[in-house]
Amino acid sequence: MRIEGRNSVAEALRSDNVTVNSLICERGADGGIIALARQKGVKVTFVDRAVMDKMSNNAAHQGYIADVTDFQYCDIDDILAASEQPFVVVLDGLNDPHNFGSIIRSCECAGVDGIIIARNRQVAVTDTVLRISAGAAAHVRIARVANINNAVKKLQDRGVWVYALDMDGKEITATDLTGAVAIVVGAEGEGISPYTKKCCDGVVSLRLKGKVNSLNASVACGIALYEVVRQRG
Amino acid sequence: MRIEGRNSVAEALRSDNVTVNSLICERGADGGIIALARQKGVKVTFVDRAVMDKMSNNAAHQGYIADVTDFQYCDIDDILAASEQPFVVVLDGLNDPHNFGSIIRSCECAGVDGIIIARNRQVAVTDTVLRISAGAAAHVRIARVANINNAVKKLQDRGVWVYALDMDGKEITATDLTGAVAIVVGAEGEGISPYTKKCCDGVVSLRLKGKVNSLNASVACGIALYEVVRQRG
Repeated sequence: MRIEGRNSVAEALRSDNVTVNSLICERGADGGIIALARQKGVKVTFVDRAVMDKMSNNAAHQGYIADVTDFQYCDIDDILAASEQPFVVVLDGLNDPHNFGSIIRSCECAGVDGIIIARNRQVAVTDTVLRISAGAAAHVRIARVANINNAVKKLQDRGVWVYALDMDGKEITATDLTGAVAIVVGAEGEGISPYTKKCCDGVVSLRLKGKVNSLNASVACGIALYEVVRQRG
Repeated sequence: MRIEGRNSVAEALRSDNVTVNSLICERGADGGIIALARQKGVKVTFVDRAVMDKMSNNAAHQGYIADVTDFQYCDIDDILAASEQPFVVVLDGLNDPHNFGSIIRSCECAGVDGIIIARNRQVAVTDTVLRISAGAAAHVRIARVANINNAVKKLQDRGVWVYALDMDGKEITATDLTGAVAIVVGAEGEGISPYTKKCCDGVVSLRLKGKVNSLNASVACGIALYEVVRQRG
């Protein structure tokens, strides 16, 4: 997989989730990233800007294009072992890479221990997702599972309270989220699948005061995560 | 200006901010929107899908393309008159239509009384912004001003506490936001301009627990708005 842009490449070099195989830089590129790459033993090649522009997928390379290994997913157990009171996000069928990247970014900022996604019906961690996440994907544990409902069950068996974020629940600010907790977020439009929702311990909602009544999925997720952060103090 | 898509067209027909001049529908389109259009005295023309596909800017017309007047901006006084304790969002130089549309959507859901934007250095309410806002722009007061700093001063003169949302402030959850309040949001990357920030009554921040430390601008704005909603109860 190939990633582009100063930030994304710098975060990939610092990451445990991807390994940089090689790096192509524009002649005269700033030394910080190059030094970091050499320190990690990554081969650096210098080329002209015109060549990079031709290689680039989206013309946003900013002088850096890296060839990296595919994203290294972790296991649910790695996420559960990361903290005594795990804080987990479960994504159910999110298929927009922009929303997925933005959610990863929010998770990193909110100190989420890990994200669980499904192998099917869900966009994987692609180069676009890495880019939209502004490098955050390089630092967040992401587990990919065959079945979301089994994952929810496993979390519950390990003492995690699992809440679906949806429209018809109890107001999130009135729900105690201070312990081990997982928030399940569905795809924009479709929402969480009915059976997954039934598997959860409860449904939490954001108060909607307008006429249109739908937040963007990644904004709704960010608000819910920061309500957990606020309650945990 | 032309807007496309079932939701956007339906919201435009219900809106005070734009007026639909005419509507083009695919033959066999669902009757609800057509009935609404006729009720409003809007001329409806039926054409074949292939013709609509050719007319469409983004191939997401869903059978509806409307010609609408430009967005009708309001005045700051209209926003201040909307509530005894106005809840206002000020955007300082936001130039990404996706973030702008998403912020409008969040403002509508959070019950914000109005948004203030600058005439320059800021994307206007275009068809893209309307589409991304999922129709919410049709129901939110937006004032466009020559100078953001003068607008901040005017809000303060009318008893509104104006807070900049930025990295180096007091934690937002520890700030009293229950009265008349405005939140100033800057562009992603650049943030709020230093002089505007200095004009504000205070700076509020979201706690960042990760290594990458930056939320998407529209997600950060959504989190801040819902903290106001929570505090206002």
